[in-house]
Amino acid sequence: MKILHTSDWHIGKKVNEFSMFENQEYVFDQIYQIIKNEKIDVVIVAGDLYDKPIVDTESVKFLNNILVKIVKECGSKIILVSGNHDSSDRISFVKEFLKDSGIYIEGKFNGEINKIVLNDEFGEINFYPLSYFDEIHIKHLYNDSSIKTSDDALKNIINRLHVDYSKRNIFIGHGYFSNKNGDKMIESDSERRLSIGGQEVMDASILKDFDYVALGHLHASQKVMYDHIRYAGSISKYSFSEMKHKKSVTIVEMLQKGNLNIKQIELKLKYDMREIEGYLDSLISEEFYKNLNVMDYYRVILHDSIGLSDPVSRLRKIYKNVMEVKFKDTQFDLDMEYQVSNDDLVSKSAFELFENFYKSVSNKELNDTQIKIIQDVIKDSEISEY
Amino acid sequence: MKILHTSDWHIGKKVNEFSMFENQEYVFDQIYQIIKNEKIDVVIVAGDLYDKPIVDTESVKFLNNILVKIVKECGSKIILVSGNHDSSDRISFVKEFLKDSGIYIEGKFNGEINKIVLNDEFGEINFYPLSYFDEIHIKHLYNDSSIKTSDDALKNIINRLHVDYSKRNIFIGHGYFSNKNGDKMIESDSERRLSIGGQEVMDASILKDFDYVALGHLHASQKVMYDHIRYAGSISKYSFSEMKHKKSVTIVEMLQKGNLNIKQIELKLKYDMREIEGYLDSLISEEFYKNLNVMDYYRVILHDSIGLSDPVSRLRKIYKNVMEVKFKDTQFDLDMEYQVSNDDLVSKSAFELFENFYKSVSNKELNDTQIKIIQDVIKDSEISEY
Repeated sequence: MKILHTSDWHIGKKVNEFSMFENQEYVFDQIYQIIKNEKIDVVIVAGDLYDKPIVDTESVKFLNNILVKIVKECGSKIILVSGNHDSSDRISFVKEFLKDSGIYIEGKFNGEINKIVLNDEFGEINFYPLSYFDEIHIKHLYNDSSIKTSDDALKNIINRLHVDYSKRNIFIGHGYFSNKNGDKMIESDSERRLSIGGQEVMDASILKDFDYVALGHLHASQKVMYDHIRYAGSISKYSFSEMKHKKSVTIVEMLQKGNLNIKQIELKLKYDMREIEGYLDSLISEEFYKNLNVMDYYRVILHDSIGLSDPVSRLRKIYKNVMEVKFKDTQFDLDMEYQVSNDDLVSKSAFELFENFYKSVSNKELNDTQIKIIQDVIKDSEISEY
Repeated sequence: MKILHTSDWHIGKKVNEFSMFENQEYVFDQIYQIIKNEKIDVVIVAGDLYDKPIVDTESVKFLNNILVKIVKECGSKIILVSGNHDSSDRISFVKEFLKDSGIYIEGKFNGEINKIVLNDEFGEINFYPLSYFDEIHIKHLYNDSSIKTSDDALKNIINRLHVDYSKRNIFIGHGYFSNKNGDKMIESDSERRLSIGGQEVMDASILKDFDYVALGHLHASQKVMYDHIRYAGSISKYSFSEMKHKKSVTIVEMLQKGNLNIKQIELKLKYDMREIEGYLDSLISEEFYKNLNVMDYYRVILHDSIGLSDPVSRLRKIYKNVMEVKFKDTQFDLDMEYQVSNDDLVSKSAFELFENFYKSVSNKELNDTQIKIIQDVIKDSEISEY
């Protein structure tokens, strides 16, 4: 049996107000081709189909189209679990009927994993899909106060499965898995924290006796402790922290028990995420951009001083999809609002507030001439107020 | 073939903040029983499945359960069209797969009706499901500026069908249908107006050559011009204007061409909508309520004067589900805010504003003693403001 493992589609995602539909469409066209070329039998989607619990109608139609393509056109079955971004109740609508079409949607965990049994020439393969869960929910479901951590919860869920480890078994899950020590995996800014003050990291070795473990949540494709426990990673880049990732799907060929071939197939993005840095005039010179894809999503680090007139418009004349503009040696980000505390607003004078602001964005103190100008401006504004 | 025609479920509906789930569950249990007893082959739902385009997860699970019951447990097929309350894009998610299970969902009209052909011992029956539409959309779809009214649009849609009227044909639609003159049908406060300034009423005679026309939108079950063109009406009461309706489903037995038996089967409500009227003390006396179902939804018209202390709490001690309390001979409704125009707020004195308010809620003029009290109160409040 040949399996394509993917996750973290985040349909409907916007990055800095830019819709990701075009990139996603471009990627899915490659996925359909891979399913056909590799003769995939089952696609596994390990959570975060949608970016939000309630999505717009365009996203609903987009996911619908993916299911039609994968199942009706490519002839593959598909198993999907709900991630922490999904509404497990919404995505499981009419799932009872979809099974007959080869679409297995696992919604909110209700105490028992719905095992799926599929066959190939070597016999049965058991799939155990588990949607994102939190340990408090499991503790209540099982009415077991000894469940304190997500590891406890996971062990409890697995024990109740009575897995026959002489058979071939695949586990599908969504969450943060690492080793026993909870060491940090390759993270990105795109993963929403799973719990506040909870035991969010799970020990992947609990799952080591499954023949393959298909995980979702972390956006970088990576193994967890073992070669057969893997994150497929997201299908596209959803923040600049993923800039250097290579996106891929993971192909798992299951032969007889204990016989497994795993490979990754890279996905190309229509618009990549890139960072460029320098003086504005040089960045918008043909010499600089002639070898770049100017349609990519750019983060621009400017070496100019912040007084520069309308840098975003000037950059967008060349780079249509500029997403972020920052100034080097400052903490100032053109998309970012400078924050003032309420305490400061009450206790500090207008001049002191400006002094702090200037220091924060330029890393410099005001000089005497500047101080004079600011003081005059403030005085004028105060007079005209009354 | 035996068909059950229903419409206007409005799942997720709240009336005066009261959830209608309990009533709906009670009604659907009767519908499942009717499907079994009458050996129904096809259930037709003529729009407004949900009350809103985006519903809560409880409503999603509720509709899911209905589909499972009707199709998997009762063994009937089901054809659903989208009403003006539904999101046609959302309800048509995965509809391509549901057909195989006998669930035919018609989403947004895209220029062509998706004819469904089902068979019985007399041959084929064609079902033509048409979701709620507006004429502007049809005009654009067909790029035909001669389409000006919804009648024009409907005629255009029907003409393109090339219906073979020698066969048995059933039309399913959602909207306001009447005769050529657009005479008023039995309406209720529950129907949202379909267009503003548009030609919302359609001539039902355009559909007269179909063997049966299953309509949705109006909440009272009623015929339109012909015995075979019918609104099934809503399954439950969704406003006090429906208080006197009897709710029902319509059973259509199709025999050979031209041979049709139609009957209605009444649906009982768990909590009915009722109005009671009198003095508060008498309404909450056992003598009065002993023969009433005190759990029904009540609109109470009080004969007392409006100074009465906390009438709602006192009524709710007996009638748990009091929805509205009004005072006779006043326009004052305890749930209603008295509206003052901005012009009046600027131009009128505090005393004049109160005078208007008093007259509006009591239908009386202030007497001299009252005038004196109000003037004193206003004077005091004005002094203390400075």
